[in-house]
Amino acid sequence: MSLGEFDLIQHFFTRPVRRSPLGVGDDCALLAPTPGMQLAVSTDMLVEGRHFVSTVAPRRLGHKALAVNLSDLAACGARPLAYTLAFALPRADAAWLGELAAGLHALADEHAVELVGGDTTAGPLNLCITVFGEVPAGQALLRSGAAPGDDLWVSGRTLGDARLALEVLRGTVQLPGDAFEQVRRAMEQPVPRVALGQALRGVASAAIDVSDGLLGDLGHVLRRSGAARSAAAPLGATLFADNLPRSAVLATLPGGHQLEFLLSGGDDYELLFTAPPALADAVRAAGIASATEVSRIGRIELEPGVRVVDVDGQVIATPWASFDHFR
Amino acid sequence: MSLGEFDLIQHFFTRPVRRSPLGVGDDCALLAPTPGMQLAVSTDMLVEGRHFVSTVAPRRLGHKALAVNLSDLAACGARPLAYTLAFALPRADAAWLGELAAGLHALADEHAVELVGGDTTAGPLNLCITVFGEVPAGQALLRSGAAPGDDLWVSGRTLGDARLALEVLRGTVQLPGDAFEQVRRAMEQPVPRVALGQALRGVASAAIDVSDGLLGDLGHVLRRSGAARSAAAPLGATLFADNLPRSAVLATLPGGHQLEFLLSGGDDYELLFTAPPALADAVRAAGIASATEVSRIGRIELEPGVRVVDVDGQVIATPWASFDHFR
Repeated sequence: MSLGEFDLIQHFFTRPVRRSPLGVGDDCALLAPTPGMQLAVSTDMLVEGRHFVSTVAPRRLGHKALAVNLSDLAACGARPLAYTLAFALPRADAAWLGELAAGLHALADEHAVELVGGDTTAGPLNLCITVFGEVPAGQALLRSGAAPGDDLWVSGRTLGDARLALEVLRGTVQLPGDAFEQVRRAMEQPVPRVALGQALRGVASAAIDVSDGLLGDLGHVLRRSGAARSAAAPLGATLFADNLPRSAVLATLPGGHQLEFLLSGGDDYELLFTAPPALADAVRAAGIASATEVSRIGRIELEPGVRVVDVDGQVIATPWASFDHFR
Repeated sequence: MSLGEFDLIQHFFTRPVRRSPLGVGDDCALLAPTPGMQLAVSTDMLVEGRHFVSTVAPRRLGHKALAVNLSDLAACGARPLAYTLAFALPRADAAWLGELAAGLHALADEHAVELVGGDTTAGPLNLCITVFGEVPAGQALLRSGAAPGDDLWVSGRTLGDARLALEVLRGTVQLPGDAFEQVRRAMEQPVPRVALGQALRGVASAAIDVSDGLLGDLGHVLRRSGAARSAAAPLGATLFADNLPRSAVLATLPGGHQLEFLLSGGDDYELLFTAPPALADAVRAAGIASATEVSRIGRIELEPGVRVVDVDGQVIATPWASFDHFR
């Protein structure tokens, strides 16, 4: 890459900074946290062939790279403030970079989050974003707050669609073109539940975003919530199979396939959270206030393990392994 | 990579967190900034074959990945607080990971900076670190504060050694084994000038860390300092060739080679900074207080361009291109 191509990158990624005391381009970005707020920080790295296919539209890749990071802020109930972007590129292609930047900037603008720093280098395609948000001290949603008896909730209605799209690309499932485009959107254009996360502060007892698959991420909540109690054993849960929200496309699959995609699909970026039953109306109000569908899909229990039950309460499944980027 | 290998990574990189309200392992890390302080943030990505050779000792790689990020905090005069680490690995090798972690942790402990979050994935070797530090509001050292008449200073005495080591590895220069080990240390074990950076608050008018080569980074200071003035034209500088600090190994090279390595070597991670001549003693005091050598190597001028002069004031060189990771 030439210096001219560095300028190209600067051209696409240098934007006026409004909230940071100092724009992009010094050794560090400077942020002025609001007094009384804690800073929430998360970092995610996206690698070609693992987190996206090489043919992904760069605008969608830009969106997704930021979306998965904003999703972590959402899971903490934090308000997004800023992000840094480091990326390695095999070559600098102006059209491709412009589209990548457009996807990033569009989502950034939607959430009023600004790019405050970065790094660019030559190398195998890799995007690493670190996001910063703020949350009133002591009010962050954690994974460790679930208690036996709490309801288990999930946002959205496309659980499993991202994994379904991946399986179509892998050739293990076939879908009509329209249906594929729909689930592909779930895979490439996840919607970070930022407003819902903030609306759930003081309502949800625990929260996590579903990146590894519902069961895998539920496992994190059960382990950490169990460890936070004096007993120290993991908690358990019952999941109501019929309450798991699914798209019309996913609903066309055979039942066993549906359940597998719903429970261990991964890459969903929905919020999985718990709340005491007495706060069920407050959860629904948070959903309405943030224009986000919420579904009550289960119950936290003292008995370890996860039991998936049908409408009659019969156990119909035991957990699968979670989605693993290293497979 | 198997889940067992994920556990291995957790094993090496999960440490007790002292200052952050929440340890590693939730969706976000939480930081509680000190009231009245601004948060300084920087991110750097290291790619195999660009920033380190594949044969580098993993302990040194861990050191370097964090050192280059701490160097950015140093250049802002910020006190390091915390960092996140995202990395892609082709495979999980316990011995290698243990050494990488040891290198990171040793430098982190030295600067009381703690690992608060991260991400791990399979992929071509890539390390992306984001560091957080804090600096009293309005006191950060910026690139834009240099004024005509200011002295130009640089820290340390191994300018050019990292590049010299690279050239030995490339086979363009030959050195005896002992001499190579010495310059290789400069390349693989840079010392972030964290204490000096903080000591220079209120003394230096501008600062940057030398990563792209002295001339290239001086160019950033000249451009940004010029742009910050009403004139908006870049400033210029005269460099005193004989004052440029160099190692005994570098001093064995022919004069022209020495100057090229000193001026455009890159990967030095020394602080290049400016200060009014009236504060020269304060600069020297900051160097002593931080046990860091400082050398007065030039002068900022209104006339654009960089003039390298000998002891008699004769111009002996014009700038070369800066070190460019995309070559």
